[in-house]
Amino acid sequence: MADKVLVFSRFAKSMLARFAEKFELLETGGKPANEVFSAAELADVRALLTMGAQPLGRETLDALPSLGAIVCYGTGYDGVDLDAAAERKIAIGNSPAANASAVADLAMTLLLGLMRRLLPADAYLRGGGWSGARPSPLLRPPRGLTNARVGVYGMGEIGRKIAARVAAFETDVAYHSRSRHDVPYRYVGSLGELVEWCDVLLIAVRAGPDTERIIDAAMLKRLGADGVLVNISRGSVIDQPALIAALADKTIAGAGLDVFEREPYAPDALSEFPNVVLTPHIGGHTLEAHVAMQDCVIANLAAFFAGKPLPYLVKR
Amino acid sequence: MADKVLVFSRFAKSMLARFAEKFELLETGGKPANEVFSAAELADVRALLTMGAQPLGRETLDALPSLGAIVCYGTGYDGVDLDAAAERKIAIGNSPAANASAVADLAMTLLLGLMRRLLPADAYLRGGGWSGARPSPLLRPPRGLTNARVGVYGMGEIGRKIAARVAAFETDVAYHSRSRHDVPYRYVGSLGELVEWCDVLLIAVRAGPDTERIIDAAMLKRLGADGVLVNISRGSVIDQPALIAALADKTIAGAGLDVFEREPYAPDALSEFPNVVLTPHIGGHTLEAHVAMQDCVIANLAAFFAGKPLPYLVKR
Repeated sequence: MADKVLVFSRFAKSMLARFAEKFELLETGGKPANEVFSAAELADVRALLTMGAQPLGRETLDALPSLGAIVCYGTGYDGVDLDAAAERKIAIGNSPAANASAVADLAMTLLLGLMRRLLPADAYLRGGGWSGARPSPLLRPPRGLTNARVGVYGMGEIGRKIAARVAAFETDVAYHSRSRHDVPYRYVGSLGELVEWCDVLLIAVRAGPDTERIIDAAMLKRLGADGVLVNISRGSVIDQPALIAALADKTIAGAGLDVFEREPYAPDALSEFPNVVLTPHIGGHTLEAHVAMQDCVIANLAAFFAGKPLPYLVKR
Repeated sequence: MADKVLVFSRFAKSMLARFAEKFELLETGGKPANEVFSAAELADVRALLTMGAQPLGRETLDALPSLGAIVCYGTGYDGVDLDAAAERKIAIGNSPAANASAVADLAMTLLLGLMRRLLPADAYLRGGGWSGARPSPLLRPPRGLTNARVGVYGMGEIGRKIAARVAAFETDVAYHSRSRHDVPYRYVGSLGELVEWCDVLLIAVRAGPDTERIIDAAMLKRLGADGVLVNISRGSVIDQPALIAALADKTIAGAGLDVFEREPYAPDALSEFPNVVLTPHIGGHTLEAHVAMQDCVIANLAAFFAGKPLPYLVKR
């Protein structure tokens, strides 16, 4: 009999296909597990598959007395109550770096799309504005990337990959993170100093209590009227109402966002700005990234059921 | 008295501001010069400023008996009748490489926007599809750039800059051009072979009789059902009806286009495809690129009026 895995988040069927070949999946469809399965059914569940950002706290763990492993699909595990899991000696696995290239690519997609005004350009052309010689929203040339000062906040796998990509666009790249890394970019000791200096702020920091709403009204003011930011990390890193205010009163020039404070909700106020580019958390959503993340999930689950340590274990 | 320059193409006022400080500009607003100015006024015009793609033939040159220099704003000079100019000993200047970085950036913008489905993603979110959990056009993950085979056609300044950028995205880059260059990418001896091999075709070749409609139905078939192309060079390089047919019958997967066969017209058929990204020839349209192009134009005009050779002379 195949080992049972509780599928805690809502996943598309296609994302579960490879797991279903190897494990018996108990799918909640994103509903609370105890609404979908009986206490008896949950009693012997030893492993759980989740999206790292989805809240997973004591109450859920209490309903799963045999749980030994929480396996996150993706890099993040910020929704998991780490203390509660540690008390119960539950191992937490993730898919570190498996989607880093895809996420870094999306950061560049948002940045370039924003700076080169891809959305208004495409709409102007498709709407017949170009052929009809109608007043163009593109007339005034935008600032491009050449020689721009780019600040990367966070220098994990994703931050490194973003820095490597944006450096190829003839930019000046600096970064801030908790500690200095062995990378060919200038280290800036404080986030405020980095934000003050840069024209483009790329946010790739891990979400957590220490980074919550760290990009606040004061930081946005330091980014300045010609500054743009891109966030592919987590919505919690930005004070979203402050960002909306900063876009409204032109404290900053624009934003590219793949992540939001409360997903899947992106405030209507954001959707109304022409100088933003918005995507529904698709950073890691490419074929290659999914295969790589699935490889990590399968390796974690297989190791766990074989009584071995998780190969991609989240270390606290 | 300032030296006179006939402004042959239609330019935005802001683009002419720096020239107006140094020269007396005779603006045609894009109309035939002899409709706007008398034969007497045109008789002593010695220099002309044009967009390189705009047709400029014998008839125009015949109306300008004193013309000694044609200065192109931008890299291209494909609209200029080179034979007619040579017969009259008219020097042709351009702005080589001045906009290469901006154009290469736009090639990447189109490529990433296309591959990561930026337009449908932004529209899905803004339209409330994400928060309303409506069926997503993004459900099936797209092929990303990681490990993609990228073929760059043309290895001039722009081709090099495109190659340097796309190589930073963990891709496998090869190229074809008339001759092998000293670049760290694999040279492929024939265009057909390059197209057959690659997943992504980036067109950066100079327009001319030898490249006219070189990307035809047969080439598109070789690019294949998973293949995408991006063109930031000139519309004439692609057989546009064949491209439309290839997109309609899914012979290729998608296209990103900044240039078209007959500008400013992009066929309605193109505008209807969801798997294309279209921009109205804005490759070189950034602040930095305009300043760099203007620097070249001013240097060319100043040298000409001083009786010196053009510093940015088009050599045949």
